[in-house]
Amino acid sequence: MSPPSLLSLAIDATLLNLHNISDLSFLPEHVLSDLFLRTLKAGKLTERILKIFIATEKEEVISMIQALNIQLVMTPVLPTSKLMSQVSIDKNEVDIVIAAFHSDLTSFLEEWRPIFSGFHLIVVQDPDLKEELKIPKGFDIDVYTKLDIDKLISSSNASMFSGYACRYFGYLVSKRKYIISIDDDCSPAKDNNGDVADIVIQHITNLKTPATPIFFNTLYDPYRKGSDFVRGYPFSLRSGVPCVLSCGLWLNLADYDAPTQSLKPELRNSRYVDAVLTVPKYSMMPMSGINIAFDRETVGPAIFPALKLAKEGKVRWETMEDIWCGLVVKVVCDHLQLGVKTGIPYVWRNERGSAIDSLKKEWEGVKLMEEVVPFFQTLKLSQDAVTAEACVTEMVVAIKKEKGRSHPELANAADNMVEWVKIWKEVQSRVLV
Amino acid sequence: MSPPSLLSLAIDATLLNLHNISDLSFLPEHVLSDLFLRTLKAGKLTERILKIFIATEKEEVISMIQALNIQLVMTPVLPTSKLMSQVSIDKNEVDIVIAAFHSDLTSFLEEWRPIFSGFHLIVVQDPDLKEELKIPKGFDIDVYTKLDIDKLISSSNASMFSGYACRYFGYLVSKRKYIISIDDDCSPAKDNNGDVADIVIQHITNLKTPATPIFFNTLYDPYRKGSDFVRGYPFSLRSGVPCVLSCGLWLNLADYDAPTQSLKPELRNSRYVDAVLTVPKYSMMPMSGINIAFDRETVGPAIFPALKLAKEGKVRWETMEDIWCGLVVKVVCDHLQLGVKTGIPYVWRNERGSAIDSLKKEWEGVKLMEEVVPFFQTLKLSQDAVTAEACVTEMVVAIKKEKGRSHPELANAADNMVEWVKIWKEVQSRVLV
Repeated sequence: MSPPSLLSLAIDATLLNLHNISDLSFLPEHVLSDLFLRTLKAGKLTERILKIFIATEKEEVISMIQALNIQLVMTPVLPTSKLMSQVSIDKNEVDIVIAAFHSDLTSFLEEWRPIFSGFHLIVVQDPDLKEELKIPKGFDIDVYTKLDIDKLISSSNASMFSGYACRYFGYLVSKRKYIISIDDDCSPAKDNNGDVADIVIQHITNLKTPATPIFFNTLYDPYRKGSDFVRGYPFSLRSGVPCVLSCGLWLNLADYDAPTQSLKPELRNSRYVDAVLTVPKYSMMPMSGINIAFDRETVGPAIFPALKLAKEGKVRWETMEDIWCGLVVKVVCDHLQLGVKTGIPYVWRNERGSAIDSLKKEWEGVKLMEEVVPFFQTLKLSQDAVTAEACVTEMVVAIKKEKGRSHPELANAADNMVEWVKIWKEVQSRVLV
Repeated sequence: MSPPSLLSLAIDATLLNLHNISDLSFLPEHVLSDLFLRTLKAGKLTERILKIFIATEKEEVISMIQALNIQLVMTPVLPTSKLMSQVSIDKNEVDIVIAAFHSDLTSFLEEWRPIFSGFHLIVVQDPDLKEELKIPKGFDIDVYTKLDIDKLISSSNASMFSGYACRYFGYLVSKRKYIISIDDDCSPAKDNNGDVADIVIQHITNLKTPATPIFFNTLYDPYRKGSDFVRGYPFSLRSGVPCVLSCGLWLNLADYDAPTQSLKPELRNSRYVDAVLTVPKYSMMPMSGINIAFDRETVGPAIFPALKLAKEGKVRWETMEDIWCGLVVKVVCDHLQLGVKTGIPYVWRNERGSAIDSLKKEWEGVKLMEEVVPFFQTLKLSQDAVTAEACVTEMVVAIKKEKGRSHPELANAADNMVEWVKIWKEVQSRVLV
């Protein structure tokens, strides 16, 4: 494959950045004409951009505009939020999944009302929670309970969705492209200016702008307003890859493990780091399920509650299902040339559980990571695996072969992965009918 | 090798975090005794920590303290800065290198006086700058000019240090462990609270705390006050690796290339991201030479001006020597299990040069990156290379073999690398005598 010409790469980069450009008059005429045609072809010739081209007063471009009979049409301007203008969010593309561990969701939902309003919510009630959920009026909401799980899932697999894992049932029944997932112990966080962080806009912006896993950009997400690629960043890598997973962060109670939180009982996260970045290719990271968003259509089959610890309880630091899931999905993304971002949006996490009580239990999850991380770091998939399902299926074989005998809980996780892919396909085919 | 026990890993983690701990009374007695002995052995039993152990009132520990005759001694408390207390900075370990492109350094040095005061400064005058430097009184400063370069370096190699590359002469003649390097177009930056960022304290803190290249920590630098490793981070990786390079960032004029800055002439960086993170292993990044610090003793031999573009000028975006150097040093670090951090400290960069003028020149550097990045991404060094010098020497062979014929400028860079290692060894041996 012959490399693209430099001019063509520069025009590609410009196309991606059109929204930040306010003047093109310094460009040589032939470059300007090229850029104009490419803009047209890419469907990016908005009213604003057209005005910028006209303002250059370059003959070639002006005559093209006349020849093609392109005219400025006055369109009504609708009020949009400051950030909303960066990416367009189609409310029909997004499901917000909430796992309910408390029966009264009133204060939780009221806090989030300004952000969730108009979006479709999927609430999955922890099967162990017996009381009926209390949900305030005015939300577009579907509630799923143990009854729904039992109806859809065979009894031998229904236990897969107990405790924290109930959220995954919401991912399964969603029919939308994007999932945003938070817990009912999260409140909206404020940024450094005191403004409430809109997790929907921020997560969807992360997912709808490319990720850059192949080369590191020191000024963080180059697609974010006010940033760009720094000197030395190869032009051929500046279009990035599709971003399919956005991992948000936590203020106040951060997602530490029981030993860390026990040793530093007063440790709270008060640092709002105003950044998003791509986790580089081949770098594994600990994904927390507490505040994430993902492209369900692309990586849904890789996001599931496979790893269940024998003695896990109802506090976050006793579980590992999301960490395992993060390793699986990162391997899938690295293999399929997809990207994972981490950083904003933040949520505010409230107190829950006693770290010291958890510390008294066996540290099964902590021990397992010593086995699991090196395994995923060195796992390579074959070129035949071109979908998330296929990647997961290949992984299952490798896990069983390399870890199955010595670690029954990992063999069990592999079995759960097989089940998940099966259930996923089944549910999706029903959805399509 | 049998894996360390979980208890031992937990105690290791605690030892690293002792400075954040204020209460140990909830620990079981045998764990407490273990921790006490390990603290003693690690030389970390400060007055404060001793008090915390005594406050537990656990018999076993108290009797150890008595048996070893450990007593609280009142030591005078010296005034230190807020951050200074995190790592101790020995002023004799640090050289601040400044490349001078303007003859009057008065306003530059006065701005930095509160931060640089008491540290040793090495100023290297751009050999093309003919006027004598104007330097205000009260600094501990050594100035090097063309005369000094010609004295130390053979005439065939002296041109290596022209323009931006003159700073590297400062790295060569330094006798200290750490180098901090900034340009004379940088001013102190302010953080989100309006406090001046102390680049010396922040860079040295980055270098003196470990880096974590093997696994990504979502809450950024886990060694920073107020942060830690998140749930799922393997305990065996929590001690990290030595950090040898700290890449700072820029407010106002960011280090973009000429095409980017030309297309967005109004683009300025106003986002102060309050974070430091390790660039993960095997992820290449574009290092800017504008605001960096490094461990000269360890990676000095890998930090040199090898890549000189034929038509490069005196504005930053026309040069590539630091980008090349960053790729070289990153490969060295990945191979030798050393770490690179990026993030704070920021400097404020002032205007210089016209991006559009630079754009008119050939984009030689931009084109080269398309060749250079894939080369370094796939370069593997042999197990015999156990020092930075040896790594560089191996790289030279690979560059000549794979890129030398098609790219004379890269063959030339390889020759310069050979020269640099030779000069470096020569100068260091003279220093030792």
